[in-house]
Amino acid sequence: MADIITFGEIMLRQASDGYLRFFQNDSLQATFGGGEANVAVSLANYGVDVAFVSKLPENDIGQAAINSLRYFGVDTSLIQRGGKRVGIYYLEKGASQRPSKVIYDRAFSSISMAEPSDFDWDNIFHGAKWFHFTGITPALGKSIAEICKEACKKAKEKGMVVSCDLNYRKNLWSTVEAGETMEKLMEYVDICIGNEEDAEKVFGIQETNTDVTKGKLNHDGYKEVAKKLYERFHFKYVAITLRASITANDNNWAAMLYDGIEYHFSNQYAIHIVDRVGGGDSFCGGLIYGLFSGMKSEEALEFAVAASCLKHTVEGDFNHVSVEEVKNLMNGDGTGRVQR
Amino acid sequence: MADIITFGEIMLRQASDGYLRFFQNDSLQATFGGGEANVAVSLANYGVDVAFVSKLPENDIGQAAINSLRYFGVDTSLIQRGGKRVGIYYLEKGASQRPSKVIYDRAFSSISMAEPSDFDWDNIFHGAKWFHFTGITPALGKSIAEICKEACKKAKEKGMVVSCDLNYRKNLWSTVEAGETMEKLMEYVDICIGNEEDAEKVFGIQETNTDVTKGKLNHDGYKEVAKKLYERFHFKYVAITLRASITANDNNWAAMLYDGIEYHFSNQYAIHIVDRVGGGDSFCGGLIYGLFSGMKSEEALEFAVAASCLKHTVEGDFNHVSVEEVKNLMNGDGTGRVQR
Amino acid sequence: MADIITFGEIMLRQASDGYLRFFQNDSLQATFGGGEANVAVSLANYGVDVAFVSKLPENDIGQAAINSLRYFGVDTSLIQRGGKRVGIYYLEKGASQRPSKVIYDRAFSSISMAEPSDFDWDNIFHGAKWFHFTGITPALGKSIAEICKEACKKAKEKGMVVSCDLNYRKNLWSTVEAGETMEKLMEYVDICIGNEEDAEKVFGIQETNTDVTKGKLNHDGYKEVAKKLYERFHFKYVAITLRASITANDNNWAAMLYDGIEYHFSNQYAIHIVDRVGGGDSFCGGLIYGLFSGMKSEEALEFAVAASCLKHTVEGDFNHVSVEEVKNLMNGDGTGRVQR
Amino acid sequence: MADIITFGEIMLRQASDGYLRFFQNDSLQATFGGGEANVAVSLANYGVDVAFVSKLPENDIGQAAINSLRYFGVDTSLIQRGGKRVGIYYLEKGASQRPSKVIYDRAFSSISMAEPSDFDWDNIFHGAKWFHFTGITPALGKSIAEICKEACKKAKEKGMVVSCDLNYRKNLWSTVEAGETMEKLMEYVDICIGNEEDAEKVFGIQETNTDVTKGKLNHDGYKEVAKKLYERFHFKYVAITLRASITANDNNWAAMLYDGIEYHFSNQYAIHIVDRVGGGDSFCGGLIYGLFSGMKSEEALEFAVAASCLKHTVEGDFNHVSVEEVKNLMNGDGTGRVQR
Amino acid sequence: MADIITFGEIMLRQASDGYLRFFQNDSLQATFGGGEANVAVSLANYGVDVAFVSKLPENDIGQAAINSLRYFGVDTSLIQRGGKRVGIYYLEKGASQRPSKVIYDRAFSSISMAEPSDFDWDNIFHGAKWFHFTGITPALGKSIAEICKEACKKAKEKGMVVSCDLNYRKNLWSTVEAGETMEKLMEYVDICIGNEEDAEKVFGIQETNTDVTKGKLNHDGYKEVAKKLYERFHFKYVAITLRASITANDNNWAAMLYDGIEYHFSNQYAIHIVDRVGGGDSFCGGLIYGLFSGMKSEEALEFAVAASCLKHTVEGDFNHVSVEEVKNLMNGDGTGRVQR
Amino acid sequence: MADIITFGEIMLRQASDGYLRFFQNDSLQATFGGGEANVAVSLANYGVDVAFVSKLPENDIGQAAINSLRYFGVDTSLIQRGGKRVGIYYLEKGASQRPSKVIYDRAFSSISMAEPSDFDWDNIFHGAKWFHFTGITPALGKSIAEICKEACKKAKEKGMVVSCDLNYRKNLWSTVEAGETMEKLMEYVDICIGNEEDAEKVFGIQETNTDVTKGKLNHDGYKEVAKKLYERFHFKYVAITLRASITANDNNWAAMLYDGIEYHFSNQYAIHIVDRVGGGDSFCGGLIYGLFSGMKSEEALEFAVAASCLKHTVEGDFNHVSVEEVKNLMNGDGTGRVQR
Repeated sequence: MADIITFGEIMLRQASDGYLRFFQNDSLQATFGGGEANVAVSLANYGVDVAFVSKLPENDIGQAAINSLRYFGVDTSLIQRGGKRVGIYYLEKGASQRPSKVIYDRAFSSISMAEPSDFDWDNIFHGAKWFHFTGITPALGKSIAEICKEACKKAKEKGMVVSCDLNYRKNLWSTVEAGETMEKLMEYVDICIGNEEDAEKVFGIQETNTDVTKGKLNHDGYKEVAKKLYERFHFKYVAITLRASITANDNNWAAMLYDGIEYHFSNQYAIHIVDRVGGGDSFCGGLIYGLFSGMKSEEALEFAVAASCLKHTVEGDFNHVSVEEVKNLMNGDGTGRVQR
Repeated sequence: MADIITFGEIMLRQASDGYLRFFQNDSLQATFGGGEANVAVSLANYGVDVAFVSKLPENDIGQAAINSLRYFGVDTSLIQRGGKRVGIYYLEKGASQRPSKVIYDRAFSSISMAEPSDFDWDNIFHGAKWFHFTGITPALGKSIAEICKEACKKAKEKGMVVSCDLNYRKNLWSTVEAGETMEKLMEYVDICIGNEEDAEKVFGIQETNTDVTKGKLNHDGYKEVAKKLYERFHFKYVAITLRASITANDNNWAAMLYDGIEYHFSNQYAIHIVDRVGGGDSFCGGLIYGLFSGMKSEEALEFAVAASCLKHTVEGDFNHVSVEEVKNLMNGDGTGRVQR
Repeated sequence: MADIITFGEIMLRQASDGYLRFFQNDSLQATFGGGEANVAVSLANYGVDVAFVSKLPENDIGQAAINSLRYFGVDTSLIQRGGKRVGIYYLEKGASQRPSKVIYDRAFSSISMAEPSDFDWDNIFHGAKWFHFTGITPALGKSIAEICKEACKKAKEKGMVVSCDLNYRKNLWSTVEAGETMEKLMEYVDICIGNEEDAEKVFGIQETNTDVTKGKLNHDGYKEVAKKLYERFHFKYVAITLRASITANDNNWAAMLYDGIEYHFSNQYAIHIVDRVGGGDSFCGGLIYGLFSGMKSEEALEFAVAASCLKHTVEGDFNHVSVEEVKNLMNGDGTGRVQR
Repeated sequence: MADIITFGEIMLRQASDGYLRFFQNDSLQATFGGGEANVAVSLANYGVDVAFVSKLPENDIGQAAINSLRYFGVDTSLIQRGGKRVGIYYLEKGASQRPSKVIYDRAFSSISMAEPSDFDWDNIFHGAKWFHFTGITPALGKSIAEICKEACKKAKEKGMVVSCDLNYRKNLWSTVEAGETMEKLMEYVDICIGNEEDAEKVFGIQETNTDVTKGKLNHDGYKEVAKKLYERFHFKYVAITLRASITANDNNWAAMLYDGIEYHFSNQYAIHIVDRVGGGDSFCGGLIYGLFSGMKSEEALEFAVAASCLKHTVEGDFNHVSVEEVKNLMNGDGTGRVQR
Repeated sequence: MADIITFGEIMLRQASDGYLRFFQNDSLQATFGGGEANVAVSLANYGVDVAFVSKLPENDIGQAAINSLRYFGVDTSLIQRGGKRVGIYYLEKGASQRPSKVIYDRAFSSISMAEPSDFDWDNIFHGAKWFHFTGITPALGKSIAEICKEACKKAKEKGMVVSCDLNYRKNLWSTVEAGETMEKLMEYVDICIGNEEDAEKVFGIQETNTDVTKGKLNHDGYKEVAKKLYERFHFKYVAITLRASITANDNNWAAMLYDGIEYHFSNQYAIHIVDRVGGGDSFCGGLIYGLFSGMKSEEALEFAVAASCLKHTVEGDFNHVSVEEVKNLMNGDGTGRVQR
Repeated sequence: MADIITFGEIMLRQASDGYLRFFQNDSLQATFGGGEANVAVSLANYGVDVAFVSKLPENDIGQAAINSLRYFGVDTSLIQRGGKRVGIYYLEKGASQRPSKVIYDRAFSSISMAEPSDFDWDNIFHGAKWFHFTGITPALGKSIAEICKEACKKAKEKGMVVSCDLNYRKNLWSTVEAGETMEKLMEYVDICIGNEEDAEKVFGIQETNTDVTKGKLNHDGYKEVAKKLYERFHFKYVAITLRASITANDNNWAAMLYDGIEYHFSNQYAIHIVDRVGGGDSFCGGLIYGLFSGMKSEEALEFAVAASCLKHTVEGDFNHVSVEEVKNLMNGDGTGRVQR
């Protein structure tokens, strides 16, 4: 019986050592991760009672994925076992002008082939207060999209909060498919998280004049996008992450939160990156924690941005940071002086 | 234009470090291998002009597989590019009473989804003298079994020698399916290589009284099996590898070769194992080299067994040994004294 | 609410790489382990609902110890937090005639400084059926010995089974101290596990004519020791592990179990060792599993010996093996053939 | 039969791990590299049919050097085998204000001791269109300088394009020796590549007022140097690389190309460095590719600078990048956003 | 018989790999270090005859600590053996906004439990000219503080120069305890080294208006602090290090030296950090070398700052740099161009 | 002023990881070693005051070689600096029937190019009691052979004991050259150490009927060889090591010592090898220690054999073992039980 339930795919992440190109040596760093699993780990690290729901095969790889979540205290008892494989993504870390590169090998994974009968949402949501998923999950296939919808419906019936990170992935579906499917799910969603690209690709909502490759932020454009999303789907909150990519090593990172009344723009962090994969998920984890634990809008936003700033300094998909560490950064200590 | 052509799948091999259990640490040793690719590498290391034929996707993983073959001088210019993925196998190395463990994740690989139109055998075999494949390749799917048959047919038309390692894999097909498919291919095969289990599982040919878990060899039983295979399919040679597994670290290893006249039993090696995956393939590579380069039956057999004895001391699927090294062992120096 | 509770110290284990001598390079393999924690992990791997009870400091090292147990599904919710440090042991793996070497740096660890008030056994044992501890725990200090006694008492009150591995450690206490303290605890113990050295050092019980450095076993001597222990303390079972050390790499391993009626001697395994630390603990884990799950005496003994045979092939203190793997070995497949 | 031939030394490169000082741990990263070999690998990665010519000993180190080139598809069939040793360079990567350090141990290498009779240039150049070498090769010894001259002569006879990277190495020869030898080779050269230091040290050609330690570029000075080189040796193109070293981690990198008519100055990249060794070679590889594949002067220049910008983000001497990756950067995407 | 004697604790330093969080993988980098040991290594690397005095246990860890110092040529013959343990510190390297983290496990180390009778200062100082210690040593315990005082007294009697780095550690003692103890030691000290925090915490001496988290330096404030220290304790020199922490990766680093007449402010370095632990110690080592070898005040200061700038680029506590390397940087070459 | 002086070459040893073939991955284990340096390290580990004499270049590699000896407490103050390079040997560790392989790249090393004027033996031997060298040193060149002779002469003049390990290396000189040079040196030698191959190759002294590849020892043959050596050169002791190579992993190891009266045959050890390079040197180190410290012939022999047995379990050329560890083995504890 967990307070927060996240649902999606957890993949085997296979990363080249350091800044090596794919297969430049014979070693791959094998860890696990995936949008909703990453959110679950963030929440577990903040002390929240959280369960991750998915389907994994009955082999040592599926078990290792589960163990990697148990390590952080995520409740894995609701994960279904079966199917053929754990999805994989290969990661090559970029540097300077060379971008990071991701190769997906996730087709036919157990979760992508799951059937609605695999998940008894009434039981899964017993006692739960919050449901989180991302736009990646329904993109995995028709059946899983259907499962998502059932989950959302049941969550609403039970009066749970539903949050969704749009997370558009062009290699999983077209903008048309994404739009059609996500449109239907939005009616159950309370909190919508995304970036300007998601809004455009999934819902055709465009801001004016922001060129993400240049590093400048256009506040008015973001407000416009947030407002359009808010009005179209009647969300409670719309959060937009603002990444200005200078090089693969250096990004500026901030976010805004619109609660229907005010547009809150967070502090911006100039980040020297260790690993940026999972950055958006750590923002979701922070925002959910903030709102779930009763912070005010702007405080929850600052918590989320500080949490994800720290994620960029942590290897792997998972955000190994504590509430205390996030709050220290929120409160202004970003100078990196040694803590003895 | 190569002298010998091998055809099959090359997979990404992901092995745990040392004797660690799967995912006991975060590192996987990523190399490449597969029955027929392993044979090609053996032959290239012996100085033979050899090409490996397969289908690999147009991504960095497919390219790395190709590069790993080019490294040894294997001709990769005949490999087709396309399809979705490189097959994977995960390997956990056993020790003492704990067996090695292999998990396959090879479904939907590019080669397993290949179509007959992908391969123009007339062109591929231009100038070639020998064709080698294994029972794994037709086991990958109906279409690929068809491709194998076309290749065999064309090879025979061109007067090439055809060798086949039976290599039964229970997770790829049933004994019934294997029997039906392999039966049809055997008519093109000159040299059949297998072990007692292959003969039984694929063709229902059984010897008497050999219990492979006990470490004793039953010469008469092996002769019986070889003879039955020889007579049923009119092979030129039948080779049977004889592995007596004492523990995961220690195996006795030998082979026999039947040429229709004599049953040659090789020297037996008591091997302290470094990596036994690819052991059978290195035997095939050695036997093909021996026969192709004009050795007499018993000499070719001893070369093959010595070559595969050495493979057991080499990490990875590929057998990094030279003709000189194999001959030194054949000629009796197995004491491991330092070569300065 | 767990079925089985184990109680003791979990240490940071710092092992040299491979067979390197201490500090021969700059790297230490940092994992966690300790007698009772190891037993808990074995049981969790067998699917038992097990909790480990201890005290660990409120820092990242204490947390990592907890995480390492959660990874395997051990219930860590009963672990107390506080005190100053996690105990450490340094391990240098031996080879051939060079013995393995352990340096302890465990004084002043949180658990060794714990107070009786830290543990509310009534609550801890709520719903539990079995309590396990070892002779190492009371050896850590007067207060912790007192805590052990309280736990044993409460377990008996509640009708739980109590098992104890004698595990004499000469660097923690003298034979006199050990004898006095352990004597008092034995009245609560149902199942006593030890080797011939423990029996002699702790209780002065000696067999005749066994020289453990020679590799021969003296069945009558072991029976004698078991009988004396059984009669003196009215145990239900006495189990004795029989290790014949040939070299640091090669040991023969077996055990006997006396149930007051019969002396069962297990199968003996000739083991080529990967890591023998935790071997005895894996025997306890196997024996507890066997008896707890309703196996007959001789079956439980064979399960325990097979389990600990496998442990010798696994790096680290913890025994990463499943019931299925242990049963395969019990049922005779110790030849290490590749499992595909 | 390759289109482009490069000629020179390939060395064993032994680099400390990460930013460790020499021998700070017991591990060296052993790869291969050398000016002309690096150019060959760049070209092979761009899909060009390229051969590398050199001399390497008949041992496992010489063979490994060859294999490392075959991996990328470089034609190694023209490499001569013989002599005693593979040259070595040790590399310690600098950081911030601490410079990178190179220790050469290349004397008496097989190529440096080669005789003119080792190379039959008429045969080597059969069907080839371009010959590339650097000023390092003739610096290795009198005999090898003679071989270079023969190669240049033969290349010109055959109407091939000849390119040369001046690459002055003060530890190999004096400025006087370099000037005398290089002067004689320049008459065969069409495309001269160098930096301001090369021009000064080898030919005494100096620009005015550029202090390379300050990070400012003096366009007029570079034009002056290019013009002087152009006029003195009647080149077709003079390319000058412009490195502004801020620290060992951060460099600005650009280049100019003079074609006798116009002075093209490239885009400048602010690079956060992964490995800068081989940066100049990757520029040559890019420029040769650009001109060979028919790009216009300024496009070839931009391709070369973008290619070498990317090289600074790749570990090792070799530039593992594709034409597509270089063009993406040329076309302005240097923000390092993840490519999924 | 050494010229310079340093006295204090040497610890086992256990650092996570790269930028990993504590125990994110199973590996720890195990080296040795400690304030005064680090100074000794710096001096040995500059060619000074230096001895380190401490107490270490008679086990392999104590011996490894000694060996790590002998490696650099530090005289270890005066180190006493005995006691129970080598102190430990765990280090997690910070990145960007995430600070580095140190966990100490140094209580009960051999040196912290040492008795005055362990050290015969008359003998230790035979022939020596300089004594150096830090404020960490007396903070380890009452007895060791007493030993420090005896050493200082004896050093003064013998006319030796005494230098002290204040190095306040809040986890070892309170500001009140530090003030009382250090006050009494200052009468023997000639050269006092510290930063603004030390001056405030130990002696309550505060500058005006410097906020160390902002990156700006307040020259007048530092002068004030230096003057107050100078006047209160009648030092010959007061050196203050000036660290402006921008992030965990980027610091500005400079220092000032007051000799009673002039306030010298050094060159400031913008450092991209590899490892900043031991940065202050390397400053002390440089300053002692400069003054001991007869440099003028400002030259010694510049040497010390350049030396410690380089330390920030070297992994581990010890500063592996030579006099030549430091002088190259002092003389202005901080551009990191490759040294071939 | 050391008691024992050893003289020869120390090389950079570059070993493949684990059992990998040369360059099978990109990593080399870089340590240092060489016959006489190895003996010096053994002696330092036994607490003897020992100096190693050689010549090494003034670069970071030469310095690292020195540091590696200082680490163990070897006096390096007599090592001359100069010349061009540190010799290298590449090592690939064998396994089972695959032999270990050594590739030397030692020509032109500083010591091999040394001149007699580099070494002032009168000064070097000041206060020394023992001089040790091996047959490798004079094999490096004419000049170094001359230096050896001068050293021997001076040692004899000073009444020192002179020991020599014949150590014939076929790749350094012919048997004829070896015989001529070594013959002249033998007149100064008191203790001659070798194996049966050395005796035959260097002095043409042959035993009867021993086939070293078979694993049987022929006691009478060894006696015969020892006696012939003894009588021809009037040694005080002749020691012969007896290695029976079963495979690269398993060797039997023993030795004999002839003192002109008795033939002592040592205990034989069946060794499971970790690293056998330096095995003979560790025997010399043990024998010198035994005789130097006053043990009787047979005791010194047993010490030497036990010491070298342990060396086979230690990675690297150097024998990291203490007198206590050797004595434990001598006294019969070779069972490898864990030392806690």
